[in-house]
Amino acid sequence: MIHAANPDEIIARCQAIAKLSEQSGCTTRTFLSPPMREVHKILRLRMESLGMSVSVDPAGNLRGLHQGLHPDAPRLVIGSHLDTVPCAGAFDGVLGVVLGIAMIESLGGRRLPFALEIAGFSEEEGVRFGVPFIGSRALVGTVDAALLAKKDARGRTLAQAIRDFGLDPSRMSEAILHRPVLGYLEFHIEQGPVLDELCLPLGVVEAIAGRTQARVSFRGRANHAGTTPMHLRHDAVAAAAEWILAVESEARATPGLVATVGQVEALPGASNVIAGEVRASLDLRHAADAQRTAGVDQIFSAARDIAERRGLEFECCAQQEQQAAACDPHLTETMEKAVHRVGFPVQRMTSGAGHDAMILAQKMPVAMLFIRSPGGISHHPDERVLPQDVAAALRAGMRFLEQLEEEHA
Amino acid sequence: MIHAANPDEIIARCQAIAKLSEQSGCTTRTFLSPPMREVHKILRLRMESLGMSVSVDPAGNLRGLHQGLHPDAPRLVIGSHLDTVPCAGAFDGVLGVVLGIAMIESLGGRRLPFALEIAGFSEEEGVRFGVPFIGSRALVGTVDAALLAKKDARGRTLAQAIRDFGLDPSRMSEAILHRPVLGYLEFHIEQGPVLDELCLPLGVVEAIAGRTQARVSFRGRANHAGTTPMHLRHDAVAAAAEWILAVESEARATPGLVATVGQVEALPGASNVIAGEVRASLDLRHAADAQRTAGVDQIFSAARDIAERRGLEFECCAQQEQQAAACDPHLTETMEKAVHRVGFPVQRMTSGAGHDAMILAQKMPVAMLFIRSPGGISHHPDERVLPQDVAAALRAGMRFLEQLEEEHA
Repeated sequence: MIHAANPDEIIARCQAIAKLSEQSGCTTRTFLSPPMREVHKILRLRMESLGMSVSVDPAGNLRGLHQGLHPDAPRLVIGSHLDTVPCAGAFDGVLGVVLGIAMIESLGGRRLPFALEIAGFSEEEGVRFGVPFIGSRALVGTVDAALLAKKDARGRTLAQAIRDFGLDPSRMSEAILHRPVLGYLEFHIEQGPVLDELCLPLGVVEAIAGRTQARVSFRGRANHAGTTPMHLRHDAVAAAAEWILAVESEARATPGLVATVGQVEALPGASNVIAGEVRASLDLRHAADAQRTAGVDQIFSAARDIAERRGLEFECCAQQEQQAAACDPHLTETMEKAVHRVGFPVQRMTSGAGHDAMILAQKMPVAMLFIRSPGGISHHPDERVLPQDVAAALRAGMRFLEQLEEEHA
Repeated sequence: MIHAANPDEIIARCQAIAKLSEQSGCTTRTFLSPPMREVHKILRLRMESLGMSVSVDPAGNLRGLHQGLHPDAPRLVIGSHLDTVPCAGAFDGVLGVVLGIAMIESLGGRRLPFALEIAGFSEEEGVRFGVPFIGSRALVGTVDAALLAKKDARGRTLAQAIRDFGLDPSRMSEAILHRPVLGYLEFHIEQGPVLDELCLPLGVVEAIAGRTQARVSFRGRANHAGTTPMHLRHDAVAAAAEWILAVESEARATPGLVATVGQVEALPGASNVIAGEVRASLDLRHAADAQRTAGVDQIFSAARDIAERRGLEFECCAQQEQQAAACDPHLTETMEKAVHRVGFPVQRMTSGAGHDAMILAQKMPVAMLFIRSPGGISHHPDERVLPQDVAAALRAGMRFLEQLEEEHA
């Protein structure tokens, strides 16, 4: 294997990019905001210095191509996103792109039986337009007219934002990925505490969890907190509390299920009034859609039982579903072997967060490698990665390429 | 007994007064607001027509005196409040004053061995200055300089509000009740569902519950709702839910205890973020102070256990206490006998809400009679009383006077 780029250097590159922000003092880089131009410039220079041909597609994705041995060789895309949440960390998204470029660097100019395309997606977090994954959607051809008409907080449409950046939204179909495609590989920080708790540097993602989001309400009867005896109450807060514990129990009892009530609002919300209504959110995720929907059924059935027993009404509205996305079994096994062969324990896991890989999985085989997030910290300036973990990921990635090389030799 | 005033007439008088409001379409009459002048005018005319001498004291209380047989006879005060909450019902407070005047009317000019003073308090609800019972505080001499300096939402002090109404706050001590005093009697709608559930017109109040109010918080760790497995969470919403059920259990298991969590706020309050903090209110009431404080101890101890087991921090701050006020045993027994003798079942009860009687109890014997609130509706335009219940209260009140008359003959 060719000498890999220094992990400290990779971390330093991510930290330098984190300084390119809409805000001083913290990293905020939304869809095609001015600092994105600087990010493109830095990464373009680096990729061009490695002999890659670089372009920005009509969705604002930065794309660099390292040609294969033959002009008609299939492509392996390695990517992640370059936008951030407000006051983000330095590694969420960016690390996957910088690592991909470091892999090309590690090849030292060597050509493989497949081309390597580095994709730095313009938008994954959904901050500016309230819709995530705009960058990766363009590669699979699902940026449609409705999406282009979406407005940001200042009333600019997505199409206008693209034109403001000097691109042409009418040419969106040019962003669609050229075939033949071997697959998509994404490196990403875990954004959770699992690897850190297990003291492991890497996790092989086998699926991105499906998700159900819902807004629920319990409607009882608002009453005077002093004059209404306990047995005559229809207290929406107490009913919701019982349900929140039922949600937690269901998730604890079902391996792989996570369920969260993150928003709770009691109405009228006065200390001396028994709440007449509670509105709450539910977020429920599982790698298997059937287990997810069974969990949702169970949780709503518990809610109806609780409401009935307590003389309240339960209502669920605005339910949204996102199917689980499975990683490709063959590519995932290849990554598993690569991790094992470079000397690290193999930990298969589900991604509880959404990733660009989920979008690309609609059209091609995908694989994902998670890198430990110390303390599980994510979407926060304290987000970190360890140099030894970055080194491990790079070694596993290079080994993954070698295995594919053997396969396609 | 002399012919009592017609209960329909009493209800109609309350409804006429409800039209005197700061708002069109709903009854809102805060401390010494312009419509209070009209209320005073109507009630003054009625009392003067009954031969009473009427004045407005420096706290804005309307006070009418029906002389006793002797100039130095002790006084029985019959009163309640004339202010309202925003968009109130027609009977909360006002009914007690109108009923008191109807009792004088029912005496038909007869003198008793004690004088009767009707007190229409200027302020009980605490809406304008955030401090309740301003009217009744004046009778026991606890309107001090700090209270007079309190400001309303427009920045007017209580002293200025009193001057705006044409009164002199520097003469506040003149509002203090003249001795000798036989006691204080208050008729009030129940503002709760107990009598309605029991199908009883009247309830004899034996105590006004003491109250503990507190703001509590559970502090855990905010985390990603998708990437944090259930066993690694420190979810403030789940901890608070467990505690809310513990509050409910404690109250259900302790006769006479009512405990309410009416405000709940989850932070950061996003559907895809496990809440790092929940802030909630606690309102706990019992007629016996010892049982109330034992309940509070139990509930806080449960909170600390839950927090510790789940790896969160529990904090209780801004705790406020109000002692229970016992009604006078002799006057209460006298009222009990009166209710029984006019043919109604005797139901002793605790008032969960605060009343002017609680303030007057600091200096004199008090008795209270509750009148059924159909549906337990209170602080709402739908608040009602039944004519037969008003008739029952008036008959019981007159019988109460007769018994006191015999006692003081």
